[in-house]
Amino acid sequence: MENFVFHNPTKLIFGKGTIPKIGEEIKSFGIKKVLMLYGGGSIKKNGVYDQVVESLKRNGIEWVEVSGVKPNPVLSKVHEAIEVCRKENVEAVLGVGGGSVIDSAKAIAAGVLYEGDIWDAFAGKHKINNALPVFAILTISATGTEMNGNAVVTNEKTQEKWAISAKCLYPRVSIIDPTAQFSLPKEQTVYGAVDAIAHTLEYYFDGSDSDIQNQISESIIRSIMKSTEVLIDNPQDYEARANFAWCATIALNGLTAAGRKGGDWSCHKIEHSLSALYDIAHGAGLAIVFPAWMRYVYKQKPQQFERFAKHVFSIDAVGEEAILKGIDAFKAWLRKVGAPVSLRDVGIPAQDIDRIVENVMKQGPSFGVLKKLGKEDVKQILLIASQ
Amino acid sequence: MENFVFHNPTKLIFGKGTIPKIGEEIKSFGIKKVLMLYGGGSIKKNGVYDQVVESLKRNGIEWVEVSGVKPNPVLSKVHEAIEVCRKENVEAVLGVGGGSVIDSAKAIAAGVLYEGDIWDAFAGKHKINNALPVFAILTISATGTEMNGNAVVTNEKTQEKWAISAKCLYPRVSIIDPTAQFSLPKEQTVYGAVDAIAHTLEYYFDGSDSDIQNQISESIIRSIMKSTEVLIDNPQDYEARANFAWCATIALNGLTAAGRKGGDWSCHKIEHSLSALYDIAHGAGLAIVFPAWMRYVYKQKPQQFERFAKHVFSIDAVGEEAILKGIDAFKAWLRKVGAPVSLRDVGIPAQDIDRIVENVMKQGPSFGVLKKLGKEDVKQILLIASQ
Repeated sequence: MENFVFHNPTKLIFGKGTIPKIGEEIKSFGIKKVLMLYGGGSIKKNGVYDQVVESLKRNGIEWVEVSGVKPNPVLSKVHEAIEVCRKENVEAVLGVGGGSVIDSAKAIAAGVLYEGDIWDAFAGKHKINNALPVFAILTISATGTEMNGNAVVTNEKTQEKWAISAKCLYPRVSIIDPTAQFSLPKEQTVYGAVDAIAHTLEYYFDGSDSDIQNQISESIIRSIMKSTEVLIDNPQDYEARANFAWCATIALNGLTAAGRKGGDWSCHKIEHSLSALYDIAHGAGLAIVFPAWMRYVYKQKPQQFERFAKHVFSIDAVGEEAILKGIDAFKAWLRKVGAPVSLRDVGIPAQDIDRIVENVMKQGPSFGVLKKLGKEDVKQILLIASQ
Repeated sequence: MENFVFHNPTKLIFGKGTIPKIGEEIKSFGIKKVLMLYGGGSIKKNGVYDQVVESLKRNGIEWVEVSGVKPNPVLSKVHEAIEVCRKENVEAVLGVGGGSVIDSAKAIAAGVLYEGDIWDAFAGKHKINNALPVFAILTISATGTEMNGNAVVTNEKTQEKWAISAKCLYPRVSIIDPTAQFSLPKEQTVYGAVDAIAHTLEYYFDGSDSDIQNQISESIIRSIMKSTEVLIDNPQDYEARANFAWCATIALNGLTAAGRKGGDWSCHKIEHSLSALYDIAHGAGLAIVFPAWMRYVYKQKPQQFERFAKHVFSIDAVGEEAILKGIDAFKAWLRKVGAPVSLRDVGIPAQDIDRIVENVMKQGPSFGVLKKLGKEDVKQILLIASQ
């Protein structure tokens, strides 16, 4: 087990009927005016918007709204909202939506207090040390953003989908009411599942080893798979929604990172270029990249891939046979729940691979922990992913 | 899954060589003088004391010392330390030791800021709303106190072993260096294991149901069992010590409580009377009480006890047969690692049962979540435990 620090200050309020608590939580920080950020308006259809607004009113909290945050959220919307925050003197940012909205809320919260362009932080030219307080109402479980300090935004001008991470970006309070996810389309549930599984695997396959951490990661993956299958048939199964939501949160709130080597994150880096260039869902991109990466790198730590096959997919074999069957089983499960598993499935032709590689390599000359990947490695992985 | 709030503000620093970080952590809060609390002096033999003192000196933090905290810590020592804190104007309490020391540190931290007798808080007559900041260096993994707001102290005059719980009692920073536990006597490791397993089971058997929470709890129990067995043969196995320590922390830091009904806690209540009256180790008392309680209450939720048998002890049977075999396997494992499993094993005669029941019932006319227990139920459980 590697040395680690676990420190997660977010207060997570979880369960049925919890959204109306948001007003009193914000009020308890002495905050009187917030930016309320949301996406395309689904929160107005499913009643979440009304619950939030009534709670803010009841607690005497003023708000201004910015809406229209899109999946794979873009920098221009962040800039727009920063201007609104400054003009309106808001004291905090409340994101109501999925990962795109809450990630944008974090970038906005940091951007308001930074004189330059907040993209500097994504580009590694500015270290985020303070931000407006962030609050979150989560309506799509997937990225884990509700309980961490990370955010990913796409600079649509440069087609770069990059990340920031800072302690001050952990939401002060996040609320998850699983019933708010009853109306999600099937593919959002499936892509959320893939994303949460991928977060777990980034740590699981970073070359570290720890009995309890391995067991917890395997538990999370098995449990997400089980609840995803239930939700495909019955999107309003509360127990499955709640189970799925909590799994997605703990997949990236520090728990699965404890005692690890920081995670590998190669698949996320490669995927970010796919969704930046082609605007496909992040979960779809991960479903394409992850099994290909596994096939390319498993020899770095075969026993961990064998363990994955045995404990996640009950593969009854040993050695390389088990490993390959495990990867195939993972791919088969992704296909079964409706995720794409090759570049072809999303219409990206093999001749685009060089262009994708070039975008990926803008993130640095090499990356990865289990196996350091250079340009040629990324190309090989994408070739496997194109089969 | 039940509604819940997860909010754990403690910063946990975990791993080899981490103890010297304590000074800078305390300093980062602007604190200049602390009470350093410890037990019988084992920290002077294993080098922990020197590491702490050097770190405090290097960071310009003054300290006063109170030592001699005993297992099953007593109120008189808490009172003594409160007086020292007031006289010396300390700004924080640093506990260096196991659960007894850190629990005492919490009671002291709350007591310094309360005009009355801090026992009022244990007796439910005072609600703890503020306390001096608590810091902890953990040297025995067992109770989980390093990452929660709970403390248990014995009032030796009244022979009451009661608990407090408050948000302000979460340590600001806790440090766990598993190498500091290399020199623990075998029974302390074993009783620590029993305590951590019992914390997990209190939630697991509270009548709630959740796939991921069940899986995580089973993972923790299996992993504690595995590392305990390794440590009995090789107390200096770092991986096993680290695994054990992290399991004990997450067994009672809110993770296993998420989505549950608050835990049952009957076994802890009954045990507290055993260790208050006979001064046996808390873990020893739990090993005696838990299997007896399970046998008495399993009909309240047989499927959960069947699941326990299957997933923790790989029992290949169904229904009541599986349940009883699971409880027997648990008892056999406790015996195997050297824990007592009946009152006889610790020399408590069956004729003492009425006296124990009387002490237990001082905590209230009934308690328990899976099954509400009254006086007669407690007696029946203790009769099973005396076999």
